Amino acid sequence: MTSSTSASKPQPLDSNAFDRETALTGSPDGQQGHWLGHIDPNWNIGDNPNGGYLAAVALRSLLELTPTQSDPLSVTTHYLRPGTSEMDCQVQAEIIRPGRTLSTVRAELHQNGKQRLSMIASMGNLSDSAEPGLRVPAPAIPSPENCIARTGESQGIDPKILNRLEIRLDPAHASAGGGEAIVSGWVRFRDGREPDTHACLLFADAFPPSIFNKLGAVGWVPTIELTVHVRRRPAPGWMQARFQTTDLTAGRMIEDGMLWDSQGNLIAQSRQLALLLG
Amino acid sequence: MTSSTSASKPQPLDSNAFDRETALTGSPDGQQGHWLGHIDPNWNIGDNPNGGYLAAVALRSLLELTPTQSDPLSVTTHYLRPGTSEMDCQVQAEIIRPGRTLSTVRAELHQNGKQRLSMIASMGNLSDSAEPGLRVPAPAIPSPENCIARTGESQGIDPKILNRLEIRLDPAHASAGGGEAIVSGWVRFRDGREPDTHACLLFADAFPPSIFNKLGAVGWVPTIELTVHVRRRPAPGWMQARFQTTDLTAGRMIEDGMLWDSQGNLIAQSRQLALLLG
Repeated sequence: MTSSTSASKPQPLDSNAFDRETALTGSPDGQQGHWLGHIDPNWNIGDNPNGGYLAAVALRSLLELTPTQSDPLSVTTHYLRPGTSEMDCQVQAEIIRPGRTLSTVRAELHQNGKQRLSMIASMGNLSDSAEPGLRVPAPAIPSPENCIARTGESQGIDPKILNRLEIRLDPAHASAGGGEAIVSGWVRFRDGREPDTHACLLFADAFPPSIFNKLGAVGWVPTIELTVHVRRRPAPGWMQARFQTTDLTAGRMIEDGMLWDSQGNLIAQSRQLALLLG
Repeated sequence: MTSSTSASKPQPLDSNAFDRETALTGSPDGQQGHWLGHIDPNWNIGDNPNGGYLAAVALRSLLELTPTQSDPLSVTTHYLRPGTSEMDCQVQAEIIRPGRTLSTVRAELHQNGKQRLSMIASMGNLSDSAEPGLRVPAPAIPSPENCIARTGESQGIDPKILNRLEIRLDPAHASAGGGEAIVSGWVRFRDGREPDTHACLLFADAFPPSIFNKLGAVGWVPTIELTVHVRRRPAPGWMQARFQTTDLTAGRMIEDGMLWDSQGNLIAQSRQLALLLG
């Protein structure tokens, strides 16, 4: 946009990096349920696209399929192979079971003829603002100003994703080993895009592995499977996060996570099965 | 078996009700990846087959596909429609991505031409007995002898599943409302079949909804989606269980669960999204 008046207009959805860089267009051959996207390198952690980003790209197809049920109530993503950045992707999706209150859907993301992820989800509508009967409160942690900015140094890698996300770590769990297997802090988009239920998929996989606080930056921790349950829509502002590795045996680990909004409301829960490759 | 000497022989796998009543046979038309089963009424809760039982039937197809990776490391089941007992079922399954350490697979269960569930799983091999680096210990609860046998009375329904499973409830969380949204206790097969990683799918959905301890037996709590992570193989004997509803808004709830074996080792974690239909 070059017009000097356009700056004050409401920005279209795709003016933000997250929306633009997860965008899908219809398949060139017009096949229903097929889309085309592009994996942008600015969401990389080291050489690989972040898993939460890949899931957020695939989710765009589901948002097209169920436009009135735009909140992912439950999303399970299995990572079959690493994604490749700076490369187009093909997304296929279908409704398995449409419903009035929620619909069950699935999606696949392919690159260069190889399937990279398989996703199954329940899509619903979280616009109701009923008072919760039960909810996990946000733990008290230092404000974003009193937390430590995440950089790539501690992991010895280049997390380009920090070009897009601002992540602040609670100093209580920001050691380089020897602590509890916990990481907590704050996350937001660098360009001011506000959080929504779509972004929760990304935020649920954007922090350094919580096991690093216990063992140090021990190596690559590829996600095998990530399930995110979104419970309500977030208020604008920073989102608070807490991740904990609860079980680790023979290089297989379970990490549980929670995301709260700036009002302290629980927004999403996550659990992932990951490998610890030393 | 009528021979008087056969009683002392090792029982074949299918001599137990769980194995027999989750058994699949090849599709009559010989199509690869297609199987036929039967939904037995003895796993009903009220009029509907238990969701964990349906998942255990579908899992049998995956055990056929990945015989050397017989442990479900991560299993997500979406329930599309209730199952129907005393009716045959058709199961279709395929390997999405075979791997050396784990394989990603999926299955569907159909009855009478309608898909009842969709499952995606990571299958692996938990025969290694490495010392865990992290593990949630079993909480101290009264022994099975000092717990309360589960009956159908508290829910006002006929849980035929109690013909197959023996369930004992911790009296601390066996109130008819007014307590915390927790249920805990013990579970085992009535016929002496020992637990294994396959049975964990069933055990993760066999207890009364934990929300009943807080709100009373408020109605039907259909599972939308259930994810079970199995962490290791259980020792013989009773399995200890604990389920808690952590989040409830607008009739949608999240219930987290853990299963430990008789040695106190964490065997499986579960999380389900369910509806609370008053």
